[in-house]
Amino acid sequence: MPYYVRMKSITRTSRNTLNRLPARASYDREVIHSIIDDAIICHVGFVADDSPFVIPTAIMRQGENIYLHGNSQSRMLQHLGSGHEACISVTHIDGMVLARSGFHSSINYRSVSLFGRGNLVEGTQKKQLLNDFVESLIPGRAADVRPMTPNEINITSVIEFPIKEASAKVSVGPPSDDKKDYDLPIWAGVIPLETNRGDPIPDPQMKFPIDTPAYILNYMSSRN
Amino acid sequence: MPYYVRMKSITRTSRNTLNRLPARASYDREVIHSIIDDAIICHVGFVADDSPFVIPTAIMRQGENIYLHGNSQSRMLQHLGSGHEACISVTHIDGMVLARSGFHSSINYRSVSLFGRGNLVEGTQKKQLLNDFVESLIPGRAADVRPMTPNEINITSVIEFPIKEASAKVSVGPPSDDKKDYDLPIWAGVIPLETNRGDPIPDPQMKFPIDTPAYILNYMSSRN
Repeated sequence: MPYYVRMKSITRTSRNTLNRLPARASYDREVIHSIIDDAIICHVGFVADDSPFVIPTAIMRQGENIYLHGNSQSRMLQHLGSGHEACISVTHIDGMVLARSGFHSSINYRSVSLFGRGNLVEGTQKKQLLNDFVESLIPGRAADVRPMTPNEINITSVIEFPIKEASAKVSVGPPSDDKKDYDLPIWAGVIPLETNRGDPIPDPQMKFPIDTPAYILNYMSSRN
Repeated sequence: MPYYVRMKSITRTSRNTLNRLPARASYDREVIHSIIDDAIICHVGFVADDSPFVIPTAIMRQGENIYLHGNSQSRMLQHLGSGHEACISVTHIDGMVLARSGFHSSINYRSVSLFGRGNLVEGTQKKQLLNDFVESLIPGRAADVRPMTPNEINITSVIEFPIKEASAKVSVGPPSDDKKDYDLPIWAGVIPLETNRGDPIPDPQMKFPIDTPAYILNYMSSRN
């Protein structure tokens, strides 16, 4: 691997440098961004009262930051908002890799790890980001929902976390077997796994018929 | 909630007791087991050099324990094998919940959190568990692959982690909107998300034609 760091690459530290299987590692911002952008949730790790905690939560990226949000009473958001260290993990499982040996059997995945400290976002930027969260999940939705109230904004926290100390790890393609195992009469290959969107289920409590909006139909027909 | 603890329930501590939205919490072993059994991977949180780390890895349950495995040089496995505290998170994303307000828009999910300390498994139990890992992902596969070598077993670690300090959190069904928002002409409902298995992709390096085994076809036609 080159010793220099390209402008679009991430600086390496002892935490974000991958020791195991370094050939699968990437420090390229575009790779890291695309893995984050494909994700709905991440897992946030932090330390409280000397214990490790891991919390799944929605994630959104804008530029060189990711954003988390939720009820301001959440232990995780309070902790990150106080500037404590966190590790954020984004993982996609893309397939089961059936090698000719159990040892080389594995999973195809794309993952990102981020380390560092976040900060609370306030004011108009917070309001805009909460709107962007709705829009990021389903484009077109933000303009359709009932506007936020000041109280809803008040009791919600938004955390900004820089994509700085970061790394991606990607495993794709067929199994890598021991050379002599290729002669064995064992089926080998990959079973792809993908997240599919089912047909929208209208809320049974809708009081009058409302057509499924065009932006939802667009969302259904588009795939990551 | 009842103050007593049923035999099949998990004892509560400050770590595994859910403060936010307690109505979605479950301490029932059957609920916790089924969420773990539906999972291929989990996210493992631990603390090393005062930093939180989160690592995605395959998970398998047997009885009242979960098992992790991998290369024995892995920082995560070395850390857990030394008896350090860990938090293990299992998460399924089941749908996007489109409420009439952004505030009540959310995600349907099933998640489990486990806290505690694991231990390394050695000897014949370790060998059996490594076999079980192959079998747990695709039933029938373990009998088909090339047997493990002593060296493969040596350089792999298996961690046993008790399902003891645990909780589940489940969110299902349609959105819960503010009462007056039900009068608004806004489409509301759920877009289900599910993990689908694609057609098996044979390894292009197979040296002679091998039919897709029956157990893989069974796996393709069965769903969680």
